[in-house]
Amino acid sequence: MTNNQGLDVVFQTLADPTRRAILARLARGPATVTDLAAPSGLALPTVLQHLRKLEEAGLIETTKQGRTRTCALRAGALAPARSWMEEQRLLWEGRHDRLDDYLASLTDTPKESPS
Amino acid sequence: MTNNQGLDVVFQTLADPTRRAILARLARGPATVTDLAAPSGLALPTVLQHLRKLEEAGLIETTKQGRTRTCALRAGALAPARSWMEEQRLLWEGRHDRLDDYLASLTDTPKESPS
Repeated sequence: MTNNQGLDVVFQTLADPTRRAILARLARGPATVTDLAAPSGLALPTVLQHLRKLEEAGLIETTKQGRTRTCALRAGALAPARSWMEEQRLLWEGRHDRLDDYLASLTDTPKESPS
Repeated sequence: MTNNQGLDVVFQTLADPTRRAILARLARGPATVTDLAAPSGLALPTVLQHLRKLEEAGLIETTKQGRTRTCALRAGALAPARSWMEEQRLLWEGRHDRLDDYLASLTDTPKESPS
């Protein structure tokens, strides 16, 4: 999976409010499927479907002990998406800094030529 | 449009490499449709379709002068998505800080009782 495809899948997975809520809950610590389903008010199969998507995207991992499945965030899984967004911010701000420099250069008093 | 629906649309729109490449190009400054189409090697109608999605998501704006359509990034349009990701990071790190504090408290020498 190239980095680009990875970003496609991560952004695609984040484009759903239930999945974002599950991630926000798991950022506070691991939780069982039952814990995750309760506040959503969704049927268990629907929650399981979202968990499967999150796991396929590499954002969470799940472990089963007896009849209890516990979900946990995969550390650093959001880092590539965050880096991409940060890059955009830097490009954008860099552009504005250069514009600011240019505008400042227009109003600056001309430099004296070296004597 | 609630904030949640806004995030759905933004993340959905970012889940495509061509659209991300267009945004990265526009972060450097406005560009015409022809400028944007050239490096992608895509047919113009395909590029126009991606531009329409980016505009509908509120990520870019386009203006037409004569036969030339110019595209520009909408400042701050990615900010809500970036905030969401940053919140996740803080939740996650906050959790780990609390865990670190707890682990440190286990190995600390017990405090002397006040005399």
